[in-house]
Amino acid sequence: MADSVYADYPPHLNPAQKEFLVRTVKDWTVQHGLMIRPAPTFISKESDPQGVVATSAPVTLFPSPFPKSCFEEAQALQTVYNQLYAAITCDEQWIGDIMEDLIDVDDFISHLWNVHLAVKKEGYVQNLSLGLYRSDYMPHMPSASSPPSLKQVEFNTISSSFGGLSTLVTSLHTELLNSPPGHPLAYPSHPLLSSSQPPKNTSVETLSAGLAAAHTAYGSSKSSPALPTCIIFVVQEGERNVFDQLALSRQLTQIHKIPVFRLLSSEVFTHTHIPASNPSRPLIYRPPHAEGVEFEVTTVYLRSFYTPTDYKSERDWDARIHLERSAAIKCPTVLNQLAGSKIVQQVLAEAQGPDHLAKFLAGTDSTTIERLRATFAPQYDLSSSGRGRSLALTPETAANHVLKPQREGGGNNIYKEAIPDFLRSLPETEWKRWILMELIQPPAEAKNVALRPDGEVLSGNVIGELGIYGTILWDQAGGKILHNEQGGWLMRTKGKDVNEGGVATGFSSLDSVILY
Amino acid sequence: MADSVYADYPPHLNPAQKEFLVRTVKDWTVQHGLMIRPAPTFISKESDPQGVVATSAPVTLFPSPFPKSCFEEAQALQTVYNQLYAAITCDEQWIGDIMEDLIDVDDFISHLWNVHLAVKKEGYVQNLSLGLYRSDYMPHMPSASSPPSLKQVEFNTISSSFGGLSTLVTSLHTELLNSPPGHPLAYPSHPLLSSSQPPKNTSVETLSAGLAAAHTAYGSSKSSPALPTCIIFVVQEGERNVFDQLALSRQLTQIHKIPVFRLLSSEVFTHTHIPASNPSRPLIYRPPHAEGVEFEVTTVYLRSFYTPTDYKSERDWDARIHLERSAAIKCPTVLNQLAGSKIVQQVLAEAQGPDHLAKFLAGTDSTTIERLRATFAPQYDLSSSGRGRSLALTPETAANHVLKPQREGGGNNIYKEAIPDFLRSLPETEWKRWILMELIQPPAEAKNVALRPDGEVLSGNVIGELGIYGTILWDQAGGKILHNEQGGWLMRTKGKDVNEGGVATGFSSLDSVILY
Repeated sequence: MADSVYADYPPHLNPAQKEFLVRTVKDWTVQHGLMIRPAPTFISKESDPQGVVATSAPVTLFPSPFPKSCFEEAQALQTVYNQLYAAITCDEQWIGDIMEDLIDVDDFISHLWNVHLAVKKEGYVQNLSLGLYRSDYMPHMPSASSPPSLKQVEFNTISSSFGGLSTLVTSLHTELLNSPPGHPLAYPSHPLLSSSQPPKNTSVETLSAGLAAAHTAYGSSKSSPALPTCIIFVVQEGERNVFDQLALSRQLTQIHKIPVFRLLSSEVFTHTHIPASNPSRPLIYRPPHAEGVEFEVTTVYLRSFYTPTDYKSERDWDARIHLERSAAIKCPTVLNQLAGSKIVQQVLAEAQGPDHLAKFLAGTDSTTIERLRATFAPQYDLSSSGRGRSLALTPETAANHVLKPQREGGGNNIYKEAIPDFLRSLPETEWKRWILMELIQPPAEAKNVALRPDGEVLSGNVIGELGIYGTILWDQAGGKILHNEQGGWLMRTKGKDVNEGGVATGFSSLDSVILY
Repeated sequence: MADSVYADYPPHLNPAQKEFLVRTVKDWTVQHGLMIRPAPTFISKESDPQGVVATSAPVTLFPSPFPKSCFEEAQALQTVYNQLYAAITCDEQWIGDIMEDLIDVDDFISHLWNVHLAVKKEGYVQNLSLGLYRSDYMPHMPSASSPPSLKQVEFNTISSSFGGLSTLVTSLHTELLNSPPGHPLAYPSHPLLSSSQPPKNTSVETLSAGLAAAHTAYGSSKSSPALPTCIIFVVQEGERNVFDQLALSRQLTQIHKIPVFRLLSSEVFTHTHIPASNPSRPLIYRPPHAEGVEFEVTTVYLRSFYTPTDYKSERDWDARIHLERSAAIKCPTVLNQLAGSKIVQQVLAEAQGPDHLAKFLAGTDSTTIERLRATFAPQYDLSSSGRGRSLALTPETAANHVLKPQREGGGNNIYKEAIPDFLRSLPETEWKRWILMELIQPPAEAKNVALRPDGEVLSGNVIGELGIYGTILWDQAGGKILHNEQGGWLMRTKGKDVNEGGVATGFSSLDSVILY
């Protein structure tokens, strides 16, 4: 039944319908800021030396069908997931044991762990920790007759992106579904499109409220005399997804009335300092455009420092330590970032051994814990003692799996039949960098049409991933939770050949959902 | 006193301040849709074959100072101006007498007049007429010691633009003045910037409410069976200022719940028709993207057909007749467009002869009429009997004047000393195409900084024009007024050399005001 939903969706577009829809979407994105800065391969530096032009973010023309039961389950579990990752982050010993194995082969993990150790040695001065998370899922539908089940792809604990733009894509599709008012015509008629609307999407409100909660919890200035306070977004140079981030800072300044500044990760030392004389270690920000003015940073929101390429030299690692040792609340801390490693996800999913979920979610009813556990796809390390190694090296079983690097930004996934040969090409000492995960089988017939940022329109088979946003603020010393919310979601839809061949010949687009 | 306001404004920007302000404005414009499509001289068709990129509309970095007394007077007079131009439009005989002289030398005027005559012969079926106007002014400040007075530059009765974007520029400057919340730092400190905020700007609401009033006044469908109704925006091909127009259609669809469609002026006959069998002549629109669907057009809003180049062939003139003879309410009618000719403005301003203002504004108190008359700059035709000819040909008096073509889109103005030679280079029979106007003397020391759509930042001496928007809906048979509102404004700031040399080497930017 479920698969038949996808068979004749989306409706066919004749040339006039396609022309209208594409033009409408192209104009809507500009009018509402659903934009990115163009890639230099599209608009070169010579064409736009001042970097002033912008282009449509990649978006689907239609919302994608998604099983209602899976969507609701994902939302229902988000605050439990928030709590789980806060509890993991509080258990430094547990994280340390897992990381230990990786430190000698993964210098990114090793560097992060050293940041933690350095600050631990000096002593942390801020116990509050903020998480802005996105848990990504696919509906697992191995056969047309079986009901869909919700399976987690990954859990993001740092720089969870697209919350700012996802609200806009939902508005775009909702407007198209109802345009013009009273006589919807923007889409060709189709039962799914006339009966349903995308669910409400509060990503911007939810994520901003999380940052605002941290800002408030920081309390008054620790400087003397007291300084005005602010939130800092630490960002990458040349960020093309800047309007996604600005949607959050706009909400913070316009609604929460909190000053927000953007700071390049390469300029952390240029514009911030921690007064040596103040044992509270407040992080002081000096806006380069306002001489003599100082703000005290309550919250450091990282939209950089999440991937190895964000650390170009030791100075960047020193900058990370500088932020970590300050009194500002980090979103996230190094420990919270490490908790988001794929290896943690794999350890949590281990069928044998200690029941980590029960431990971290002590106090949560067992039904809820089992519902959460049911979202794990089977996954394995590649240790000589485990089952993963034989599953990965045997072509028949490898065909049902994906091999993922366990670190953020570490490279591409390896799929199916390619796994055995790939592994054999690596020295065995490197195998621990990889996680083997049973493939989630999303709806095989799903299709959509997407507008790319260069204006090309592509259509074909797609795979959609649903992300649910959550925010949690907790006290790392004792684990007390001060704020725990879920709200807002993201549908991201990729051309199917992206995942099959590992080469991005297709597209990955922002999308929304209609539930069935 | 007044001039000293301009002497040290805007405050100097050091490199860090300028970098921050320019980057903030560049990002803000994208996030809020304060955008245009780029000129092909900037982003070529080869760079962006699908026409997907957009760029910042030209905007000033700072709001411009403007005398409060002049701003308030302009707002106070707008509904009177609306009424004046509605009354002129009702007096076909009076307009005809003025046009008569021009018909044999100005084929644009002649064509427009013929559209009117053709429809008059058949008989108009729609007496309601809608005006969306913008009255443009400058503060006249001939000396530093004299108080500023308000002088009208021109009165636009067709395709009055930038209402959609002007609201956004006001928001931009207001946000910069208050950013970050509680500790404004975006601008260097300056007394004018810390004491004042731009006035509220309701252009989008006001203009859309005018269109909505016409839509409602049209009443129910004149077709049988009844059709759903809509508003049509008739637009130019390749319109780069499309987001200005979309701000109005968004308001109409989202707030007023009225279907709006965009129709290229070249495709009027392709997608609309008037059923020959229906003596009410409803204008029927068939959306190309929805086969078999028909809407009845209540209101035709022209954002094309205002300039000679919008008429590429007789077919375009036929399309204008087609719209004019339909039952749809026109914004504007041909007569209302003709009422906006510069020659009408000049006749109204004539110091000798009949008191046209008193006639058209019968019922308005004489004080108000005199206040309106006081906004006219002295202006003259170049007839052999009038004073204009000698003022224009004498270098000493020409130096205080501008020579303007009386028709829309007719060419550039000629300034000061260039006037006598220019006139002598024309055959005398053509002189009646021109109006001589005494130069308005705006603040001599006004300066600003502007971001151009190609990202370049220019600063220098500027001239600002304030436009006030107004809307009026009236019954052409009898003159009854159904709706008469003012609201919303536009500051447009041009590099001074534009007006001096006649060559657009400088810039013309959207701006807002702070009143002093």
